[in-house]
Parts: sequence; structure tokens; C-alpha cells
Amino acid sequence: MGFSAADAVIPACAVIGIAFAAWQWFLVAKVKVSAYASTGNGGHGRPVFRQEDEEDEDNRIGGESDEEEDGGDGPAAVARCAEIQNAISVGANSFLFTQYKYLAAFTVIFAVVIFLFLGSVHRFSMASQPCQYTKGKMCKPALANAAFTTAAFLLGAVTSVVSGYLGMRIATFANARTTLEARRGIGAAFATAFRSGAVMGFLLSSLGLLVLYIAIKIFGLYYSDDWEGLYESITGYGLGGSSMALFGRVGGGIYTKAADVGADLVGKVERNIPEDDPRNPAVIADNVGDNVGDIAGMGSDLFGSYAESTCAALFVASISSFGADHDFAAVCYPLLISSAGLVVCLATTLFATDFFKVKTVDAVAPALKLQLLISTVLMTVAALVVTFAALPARFTMFDFGEEKQVRNWHLFLCVAIGLWAGLAIGFTTEYFTSNAYSPVRDVADSCRTGAATNVIFGLALGYKSVIVPVLAIAVSIYVSFTLASIYGIAIAALGMLSTVATGLAIDAYGPISDNAGGIAEMAGMSRRIRQRTDALDAAGNTTAAIGKGFAIGSAALVSLALFGAFVSRAGVTVINVLSPKVFAGMLVGGMLPYWFSAMTMKSVGSAALKMVEEVRRQFSTIPGLMEGRATPDYASCVRISTDASLREMMPPGALVLLAPLVTGTFFGVHTLAGLLAGALVSGVQVAISASNSGGAWDNAKKYIEAGASEHAKSLGPKGSEAHKAAVIGDTIGDPLKDTSGPSLNILIKLMAVESLVFAPFFAAHGGLIFN
Amino acid sequence: MGFSAADAVIPACAVIGIAFAAWQWFLVAKVKVSAYASTGNGGHGRPVFRQEDEEDEDNRIGGESDEEEDGGDGPAAVARCAEIQNAISVGANSFLFTQYKYLAAFTVIFAVVIFLFLGSVHRFSMASQPCQYTKGKMCKPALANAAFTTAAFLLGAVTSVVSGYLGMRIATFANARTTLEARRGIGAAFATAFRSGAVMGFLLSSLGLLVLYIAIKIFGLYYSDDWEGLYESITGYGLGGSSMALFGRVGGGIYTKAADVGADLVGKVERNIPEDDPRNPAVIADNVGDNVGDIAGMGSDLFGSYAESTCAALFVASISSFGADHDFAAVCYPLLISSAGLVVCLATTLFATDFFKVKTVDAVAPALKLQLLISTVLMTVAALVVTFAALPARFTMFDFGEEKQVRNWHLFLCVAIGLWAGLAIGFTTEYFTSNAYSPVRDVADSCRTGAATNVIFGLALGYKSVIVPVLAIAVSIYVSFTLASIYGIAIAALGMLSTVATGLAIDAYGPISDNAGGIAEMAGMSRRIRQRTDALDAAGNTTAAIGKGFAIGSAALVSLALFGAFVSRAGVTVINVLSPKVFAGMLVGGMLPYWFSAMTMKSVGSAALKMVEEVRRQFSTIPGLMEGRATPDYASCVRISTDASLREMMPPGALVLLAPLVTGTFFGVHTLAGLLAGALVSGVQVAISASNSGGAWDNAKKYIEAGASEHAKSLGPKGSEAHKAAVIGDTIGDPLKDTSGPSLNILIKLMAVESLVFAPFFAAHGGLIFN
Repeated sequence: MGFSAADAVIPACAVIGIAFAAWQWFLVAKVKVSAYASTGNGGHGRPVFRQEDEEDEDNRIGGESDEEEDGGDGPAAVARCAEIQNAISVGANSFLFTQYKYLAAFTVIFAVVIFLFLGSVHRFSMASQPCQYTKGKMCKPALANAAFTTAAFLLGAVTSVVSGYLGMRIATFANARTTLEARRGIGAAFATAFRSGAVMGFLLSSLGLLVLYIAIKIFGLYYSDDWEGLYESITGYGLGGSSMALFGRVGGGIYTKAADVGADLVGKVERNIPEDDPRNPAVIADNVGDNVGDIAGMGSDLFGSYAESTCAALFVASISSFGADHDFAAVCYPLLISSAGLVVCLATTLFATDFFKVKTVDAVAPALKLQLLISTVLMTVAALVVTFAALPARFTMFDFGEEKQVRNWHLFLCVAIGLWAGLAIGFTTEYFTSNAYSPVRDVADSCRTGAATNVIFGLALGYKSVIVPVLAIAVSIYVSFTLASIYGIAIAALGMLSTVATGLAIDAYGPISDNAGGIAEMAGMSRRIRQRTDALDAAGNTTAAIGKGFAIGSAALVSLALFGAFVSRAGVTVINVLSPKVFAGMLVGGMLPYWFSAMTMKSVGSAALKMVEEVRRQFSTIPGLMEGRATPDYASCVRISTDASLREMMPPGALVLLAPLVTGTFFGVHTLAGLLAGALVSGVQVAISASNSGGAWDNAKKYIEAGASEHAKSLGPKGSEAHKAAVIGDTIGDPLKDTSGPSLNILIKLMAVESLVFAPFFAAHGGLIFN
Repeated sequence: MGFSAADAVIPACAVIGIAFAAWQWFLVAKVKVSAYASTGNGGHGRPVFRQEDEEDEDNRIGGESDEEEDGGDGPAAVARCAEIQNAISVGANSFLFTQYKYLAAFTVIFAVVIFLFLGSVHRFSMASQPCQYTKGKMCKPALANAAFTTAAFLLGAVTSVVSGYLGMRIATFANARTTLEARRGIGAAFATAFRSGAVMGFLLSSLGLLVLYIAIKIFGLYYSDDWEGLYESITGYGLGGSSMALFGRVGGGIYTKAADVGADLVGKVERNIPEDDPRNPAVIADNVGDNVGDIAGMGSDLFGSYAESTCAALFVASISSFGADHDFAAVCYPLLISSAGLVVCLATTLFATDFFKVKTVDAVAPALKLQLLISTVLMTVAALVVTFAALPARFTMFDFGEEKQVRNWHLFLCVAIGLWAGLAIGFTTEYFTSNAYSPVRDVADSCRTGAATNVIFGLALGYKSVIVPVLAIAVSIYVSFTLASIYGIAIAALGMLSTVATGLAIDAYGPISDNAGGIAEMAGMSRRIRQRTDALDAAGNTTAAIGKGFAIGSAALVSLALFGAFVSRAGVTVINVLSPKVFAGMLVGGMLPYWFSAMTMKSVGSAALKMVEEVRRQFSTIPGLMEGRATPDYASCVRISTDASLREMMPPGALVLLAPLVTGTFFGVHTLAGLLAGALVSGVQVAISASNSGGAWDNAKKYIEAGASEHAKSLGPKGSEAHKAAVIGDTIGDPLKDTSGPSLNILIKLMAVESLVFAPFFAAHGGLIFN
């Protein structure tokens, strides 16, 4: 494959991905959320008209769907859905725009910091400098690298924000449509939710690829054949993406869990009203939270992983024989893998929406699981093709000052091991968090003796669930590191992320279904509809956990790849554990995930306490609220979540961004390397266990609520002592699985990419104290 | 100081320590637990006689001590105390002897493994071999080292078991005596509990020192001037001590928490009867558990740390210039520091029992804190004296193949930084777990909104409490490592442990007071007595947390010292993080504390569920039990705890012992080094956060129960919703703080010492797969 072929394939695939996303959006938009007149107060009134247009027989749930109906699904309900959708959309929009104002200020300041730090490497000299890796050649001045790195940072930040925002738009566009499609049956509702998830998945991965490709081309106009400088500057793209992701995940995570925990503590525990009951003042904030936390936050997160692993791979490739030979197709191998991934995911999506149709409730979870399997198998084949088409048979890779002989099929193995390790992590996560298997059932069973045993068993489950994912990551690291040094790890990470469009589709499907269920409840839809949306939601809970496992696994690989690139860029060849500087750094690095989690958990706790007070206040001061005769003041709860999340996202953000800067500047590259290694080794475990404990508690509660087996019935029904214990576990799990756990991915990645970007500065001026 | 001076000082100090312990025991024994006739059924009868012999006025608590008395403190109560004490003592004895049978079998098997593995290094050859470090000299054969290492292992195991057993004996001897002394006032009760703790502290540290000294002397008869072989064999002593400690901590931890959680879940939560109520069938098992878990287990743990850090220091010294010069006093520096520590602790103890007397309830906690401060200050001075007396002004230390120039005052700094880091860790732990400060009060406050927020805040507190201890450890490591390489770290660890006699005294004081409170409750003593024992117990809770912080801090240093010694012995000079073998090992090592905790938490949970069933069964089938007219079947609960702990201690024990063996044998020294580093970096954080979360929940509950401030009163009283939430947190914290958390110390130490002992084997035959 020559220069021009890569130049044709990459943009073409990106455009195909965008077009596919547009087509899916068009299909979702065909569902009309009509603009009938509102019922006035948006309250919990009982409509008179009922519409029954079943699509098929299979979607009846346990024969119960003909029982008493406590809601109606006619035009009044549709109007209420539209109204609620609008409220959620407005809330999410307003939060994101407020957040973006803060982020804009941060981005400008941080861009200046980047420029000044990197510009100072050669004291802002405009003169060309000798290249670091290609001996005897001149490269562009450090000042130019500073300017272009800053530009790439801004580009990454903007792309990340746009990705998150678009994801939120489609999610708030699709939630009510999914509810309304549930009238036509489970299959139609599933297709709507899944297509909407696909819009986000494809938009995000295509955009990420396209923008990066264009940036390389434009930067290349200046850099010409100085590829060292070009790909060093491009790393700023990863930093921009990841720093936005940090605030998105942390801010969004605090927002959503403050609302969720606050709503549950008063609504479910004190007032004994169902989840998503429209009488609960925090219910809109809760649904807004799903969109800003789980959708926009998670989208930014995976975009960041994708951008970072590509940047790490490109940087290492540029200082290897690919760079020395100026083999553009080979350097672009990471982008080609991602391009192939887009096509593979496109085919995979059709399996869920067109080739096979979901017809029963029980088919939802297997359909989602099948997506993972199909995309992995297809991608393995695609990787084989791309590898042999794009790469020379033999080449050398930079290996911390040495050169490592690599063959093209070695890199195929790296992609494949990343892919399949991702699948192993996904399926392990499913085993530990789905209530179809014994771990969650044991946790549910432990609710018999109360909340304490539930929590003990749930924590133990989370700890245990770490074993297989960590072994899978360790094997991937060992194999890919051995085959192709740090480049192998970056490629393994990209392999795991090559099916990110499908992963994101599955992941976004969860909060969309959750919102759809919330809208059904709030709009007073019939029990039949709510059972369908609940079934979609339960499957979404497990896929959310899988998505998180996937995000953590890829973050570990990405972080290690960035770590390797940082060390290479800093000109270090050995990081010796048997050195005081390194070991002290490792120990402190291992502590950072705890410090960070302490901040985020406490933030959620404090914000939830405020939310509880407000909800209690409204119940006690607004007459007729409990009886459904008055509308609560949703806006004040939205305001509490917004204020709390914006205020509380600062300290953890500062910790993550300052830790590498301070360590590198004062203690030098070796201590910083130790810090990163320690944070990675410790953070992966905390993140996986937190996510899975939380997921398991959530599904243990759902298992008791659903009462689908004799065992589950013996623990329930809703309101039983065991169920109350399960609700406590679920609430504890909320900040673990949706705030601190997933934010830790970003902690380990962001610290590494920041170190990589600032590596020239640390190498030149770092270590004020220890050196 | 010449050869003979060290030979005089070390045994003399050890004998003084033993004599002091005997004297304290004698003083405790003066309190008579008279052998009056038993009241028959040992039930909850109301005695007629009341004795009132107040010692002073100050010990009245909040003016309430004159209120209604619901018990009597006369001869009948004394008889009941004697009876209960006997039941606890018999239970503890019976458990420990059953456990020792298992341990004996394990010890024999493992001794054979050690002998075979080490003997195989030179294929069981009887011929002398060239020394590894002293070039051109002949050393004893590997087979001799195998035999002496095995002997040292057996010696360490026996000493550890004897230490734990003696601790248990004095504790079960002192508990009822403390209760009875509480009739004379808080001061007398405090003195009894504290003296008993001192017996354990001094016996254990003196014995450890003396046995090690004698072993060196006896082994030296064979080894003569082959100090390499001598001190390599001596490392078996640490392995023996630590492997017994593992089973003691894990088995004892499961025993005590199964009983405690089971008793609380039925007694406090379902039946609404107080803690330690004699109607609760699990109450004897609970009190037995304090003695076998918190006393015997913790004693073995700290003995292990002490033995290991000394062995690590001796080994490194023997391959440094001390060894080359055959300077016995200098090699014995670690033993001299410990000897000085015994004298310092002796003086410190007198401050608590003789120079100042505790007269009020409020004076208990400060008196214990003062102990830490006094011992640290005195020990700093003593270390200065020992350092300049024992060490030459300049010498060289082995530094991973290089030689490092060290001066004697460098080593003084190492001792001092270890000492003061220990104090910093202790005081930080106190801040985060004592209800005198805002962190615990915030946790108590969060109980207003239920158990979920309590748990979220408690977890966040545990995470946050990691920061300062880890920074303190990191600074200690940086300074001591930089000053004197791995020897510096061993010496810093010994510095932290030099005041171990005082630390143990404070630590053992806790469970003794806890037992005393239990006996007061069970014997139906007056409220006045119970308030005094409760006050002792509350102070003990915080000191227990301090003791755990101390144990973890020293374990981190010890483990790193052992790690360094292992790497030195294996002949490795660099452990490069940028190597696939090392990094994969680190990641998996970081996972081991989670795997281990998953096992121990789940064991406690399952055993507690069995206990709950048994207690419920007794309440529902024994007529008149709730009314106090019948005696419960305590023995069946003791049996459940015993069986569960013996069965469940095997898998985690196997994990810890097999992980280094399997890794070293199949993957080689570098991967094993990575594994140890990862386990250390991750385990420290898990252990500290688990201990402190648990301690904080316990004291938040006690804070609400005591109701000593307006704020606390607004949350209480016992039985309020907030209090119920606090009880749930306390129960969750039980396995975290008393089973999985403290066992992790042993995990990181034991894996490291095992690697050190097997290092010759790994160096010769390790790495079957990766090499």
C-alpha cells in the first residue's frame, strides 16, 4: 500500500462512518415525538385514552402484560413524553454549556502553560536544532513544537467536547423515542435505543480519526520531513482530548450521582415511591445526569483513549524505522487499523438492527453480547489484511535506546491479543455483574441478613472480579511488549479500541434505555411499556459494566504505551525499581487513585446530602406533592447538581493535572516514571473493583425487584427487608461505579499523556530538587 | 564497642525485658479473681450484694454514675467474672491448640520444601563452594545452608507461636482482672489492662531478640567465618515467624469477625439486645475471637516484622564491609538497636503506670498517646548513643553490585526517620479514626441520611487517610535508601519497630479492655463499672487503629528491605520497569492484595451467615433464652467460628505462599521482583484504607452511642435511625479492619521474605518459562 492508498482509505472510512451515523440518526428521527398540546402541569394525571398496537406476541413478559394497567399510552402520554424529553434536553444542554465555559477558561490557561513550558526548552529560540533520534539531521525549533503542540491540544479539546456534546444530543433525542417505540414492541424499542447508541459510537470514532488525520496533514505542511517534531506535536491532541474527558467524567459523574443518590434516599427509602416517579423533585436532574455523565462523560473518555493510544503509537513509529524511512503507510498503521475498525463495526451493527431482529425480552442481552463477539472476530480478520497490506515484512522499532527487530505478523499478534483481551475482560465483567450468574445472586442472597453482609459480599465480589482482567492485561502487555516493545503495547491498545464504535454503541444504549424507562414512568405509561423499558434497562446495566471494564482495560494499555513514549521522549533507557527516586515515586503514585477517589466519593456524598435536604424540603413545603396534585420544583434540584459538580470537579482535576507537572519539575523524570507506574498498577485494580462492585449491587437489587426465579421471589418483593438492604448496596455502588471508578481510567491515562507532552521540558529542566 | 560488649549487652537487655514482663505479670496477678462457687447456670440473674469502694471522685462519668444500677459488683459478680473468664480462656486455648495442629503439619511440609529447594541449588553436593560476595574464598556448601535455613525456619515458627500463645494467656488472664479493678476506679483498671499489654509487648520483643541472638551464636559454631552462609540461613527465622503470623492473622481474623458480625447481626439488629449480652449465644465466641485474632494474631504479626527486618539487615550487613571485616559489633547493630529499644520502652511504660497515674476517663487516650511520643523521643537519643558506640565512622554497604560509602551518622538518620515516620503514621491514624476529630464526626453525621451515605463517607475517609502515611513512608524510603541503600531501609524499619514493646503494649491494651467490657456486661456488673470499661474500650479502639497503621508502615519498610535483600541475593543489579517481564509482574502483584482480600472478606461473610443461622436457631428453639432464664449453647458458636476459620485460612494462605514460589520458579527473578514491588505498592494502600475505614465506622457508632456532645446527642440515642445506620457501617468495617486489612501486612512481608529465602534456588533454577 503506497502513500496515496493510505491517503484514500483513511478519510474514506471516516466519511463512511459519519454517513452511517447520519443514516442511523435519520432512522431514529422517523419516530415522531409529536408536539401535541401539553396536559398543563405535566403532572401524574390519569389519561383516558389507551392505544394497543402490538407488533407480535413474543414480547409479553411472563404472561403479566394483560394485568391491570395503571397508565395510558395515547396522545396525552406522547405529549407528556415530549415535555419530559424537552426538560431533560434543556437541563443537559444548560449544564454542558455552563461546564464548557469553565472548560474554556481552563483550556486557555493550560494552553498557555503548555506553550510556555515547551517553548522554554531551548529558551524560546527560533533556530533549528539537531534532531534527537535521527543523528546528524536538523529538526524544527522547540518553539515550533511548542506552538504546534498547543494547537493540537486545542484541537483535541474541541473534538472531545464536540463528541461528548453530540452524544448527549442524540441521547436526549432518542430517549423518548425509545419509550414511544416500546408501544410497538420490544424489538422496535431496542432498535431505536441501539441505533442511537450507534450514532454516538460512529460519530465519535470517525470524527476522532478524521480530525487527527487532517491535523497530521496540515502540520506536515510545516514540518515537511521532520517527523520527530510532527508526531511529538501531535501528542498534544491526546492531552486535549483526555483533559476534557477528565472534567467530563468527574463533573458528569458527580452531577448524575448526586441526583441519583439524593433522589433514591428520599424517594425510595423515606417516601417509598418508585424510581423515576414524577413526584420526586430530583427526578429530572437524575435523568439529565445519565446524559451528561454516562453519555457525554463516557464518550469523551473513550475518545481520549482512542486519541492517546494513536498518538503514542504514532510517536513511537516516527522515531523507529518507519520514521527514518519516511514510510507514511507504515506510520499510519494505527490509523488504518482504526479505519478498518469502523468498517467492521458498521457490519457488526447491521447484525443487531437488520440481519437479526430482537423479538423477546430475553433476546436483548444476548444480542448485545453477540455484538462484542462478532466485532472481535471480524476485526481479527480485518487486522490481518491491514497488517500485511500496510507494513513491510521486517522493520525495527525504537526500544529505549536500542533497536528491536519486528516482523509484520508480530504487530498482527499485538492487535489480536488486545482485541481478545478486551473480549475476555468484557465477558468476565458480565459474569460478575449480570444477575444471570451466581456472583450477583450470592450478593442478592446475602441481603437476607441485611445491608452489612450485602456490602461485605459486594466488596469481595469487586475485589475478586479484578483477577481475570488483570491477568488478561498482563498477558497482553507481556506478549506485545516482548514482540514490539512499547509500539506493541500501543498497537495492542488500539486493537482493543478498534471496535470502539460498537463498544460505544452498546455502552450508550444503557443510559438511553435508562432514560426511556424514566420517561415511561414519569409520563404515566402503561405497565406493559414500563416492563419493556425496564428489560432494556436491565440489559443496559450489564453492558454499562462491560463498557467500563473495556474502558479500564484499554486505559491500562494506553497508559503504559504513553508511559513508554514519555520515557523514550525523555531519553531514559532504564527505570530501575532499585532506586530510591523511582520507588518513592511508585509508592506515592499508588496512593494517587485513593486520594482522587476520596475526593470524588466525598463530593458525591456531600452533594447528595444537599439534594436530600432540598427534596425533603419540597415534600414538606409544597402542598399536594405526595398526592401528585402539585408539580415539584425540578429546576432547583438541577441547580444543586450543576453547582456541586462544577465546584467539586476542580480539586480532583487539579490533583491529576498538577501531580505529573510538580513531580517532573521538582523531582525529575525517574520519580515521575515511578509515579506513573505506581498509579497505573494501583489504579487499574481500584477502578475495576469499584465498577464491578457497583454494577453487582445494582443488578442484585434489580434481581430482587424482578423476582424472575423462586430464589429471587423469596428475597422480594420491593419493600421487603432484603430489598431495602439491596437498595442500600445499590446507593453505595453509585459513586463507585459511575464517579470514582471510571474517572480513574482518565487519571492514569491523563497523567501519562501529560508527562509525554511535557517530556521535553522535564528532560531539559526537570528535577529541581532530586537532581 | 568490641566483640564482648555486644555479647554482653544484647542478652542482658533481653533478660531485663523478660524480667520486666514477669514483674508486670506478677502485679496483674495480685488482683484476685476469687474461686467462689458458681451461681449455677451462669445466667443473667440479679445479685443482691453491692460493693461500693470508690477510689476517687474524678472517675464519675458525666454525673450519671449515681443513677439506677442494673447490676451488682459483689462476690456473686466476681464469681461470674471468674466463670466467664474461664470460658473465654478455655475457648481460646482450645482454638489455638487446634490451629497449632494444622500449623504443625504445614510447618513440617514447608520445612521439607525449603530443604529440598535450597538443597537442590548445587544438586545436594556436600562440597564447599566459592563464596558469592567475598571473591576467592570458600564458603559452606548449599546443602548446609539448606539445613540451617530449615532449622532457622522452624525456630522462627516456634518462637512466633509461643509469642502469640503467651500473649493470649496474659490477655485471658487480665480481662476479668481489669473488670474487677474497675470497681476500684478507672486508674486501677487502666493500669491492669496496660500492664498486661506490656507483659505481651516485652515478652515478645525480648524473646524474639534472645532467640535470634542465640541462633546466630549456635549457627556460628558451624559457619565460623563464613558469614555469608550464616546470615543467609538466619533469614529462615523471618520466614518461619511470618508464615505462622499469616495463619494466625487470617485464621484469628476470620474467627473473631465471624463471631462478631454474627453476634451483632442477630443480637443488635434483630433482637435489639446490647453488645456482649450473655443471652447472645455468639458472645463467648466473640470474646474468644478478640484474644485469638487481635492478640495472638497481632503478636505474631509484629514479631514477624521484627524478625524479618532484623534478618534483612543482618543479611545485607554480612555482604557489606561489616561482613568482610568481620566486625561483629557492627553486624549486630540491628540487634543493638532493638536492645536499646527494650530499655527505652521499659522506661516509657513506667510513665504510664508509675510516674503519672490515670485518674479520669478523659486521661486514658492522652496517656496512651503520650506513650508513643515519649518512646519516640527517648529512642532517638538511645539510637544516637548506640550508633556512635557500635559503628565505625565510615564503612561501605552493598548496593546491588556496587559499594556505597556510608557514615555512622547516616545510619542514625535512618533509625530516626523510621521512628518519626512511625509516629506520624500513628498520629494520622488517630486523627482519622478517633471520634475526637472531625473526620469521624462527619461520618457519624452522614448517618442521618442512612447507611448508604455512612458507607460512602467511611470509604472516602479510608481512602483519604492513606495520603499522609504513604508520604511518610515514601520520604523514609527515599532518605534511608539514598543514605545507605537497602541496609538503610532495613534500619529505618528497625527504627520504626524499635519501640515495638510499647506499641504492642498499647495495641494489646485494646482487646483486653474490650474483653473487660464484655465480661462486665455478661456478669451483670453495675452501670458504673460498664461505663468505665466502655471508656477504656473506646480509647482502645483508636489505639488499635494506631497499632495497625504502625504495623502497616513498618511492613512496607520491612518488605522493601527484604525485597532489596532478595534482589541482592539473587545477584540482580537492575529491576527495569521498562521490561515486559517486570511490568507484567508488577500488574499481577498489584492484583494479589485484591484477590487475597476477596477471599478473606467472603470467608468472614460466609462464616457470619452460618453464625447468624445458629444464633437465630438458638433464640427460636431454646425456651426462655430471650428472657434470660436459659443458658445459650455457647460451645456450638465457638465450634462454628473454629471450623470456619481453620477451613477458610487455607486458600488465602496458599495464595500468599505459592505466588512467589510459582512466579520465581516459572517466570524467574525479574518477574518475581515485579510481583513483589506491585504487591507492596498496591497492598499498602488497601491495608491502610481498610483499617482506617473500619476504625472510623466503629468509632462513629461509639460516638453516637456515647452521646457526649450536643451533636452526638442529636444523632442518638441507641436504636435511632442514625444509630442503626452506624451499626451497619461498623459491621462492614469489621472484616476490613480486623481480617483483610491487617492480613495484607503479612502478605507483602511474607512474599518478600519467602523470595529472599528461596533466592538461591530461583537464581540457580528459576524462570523455566520466561528464561
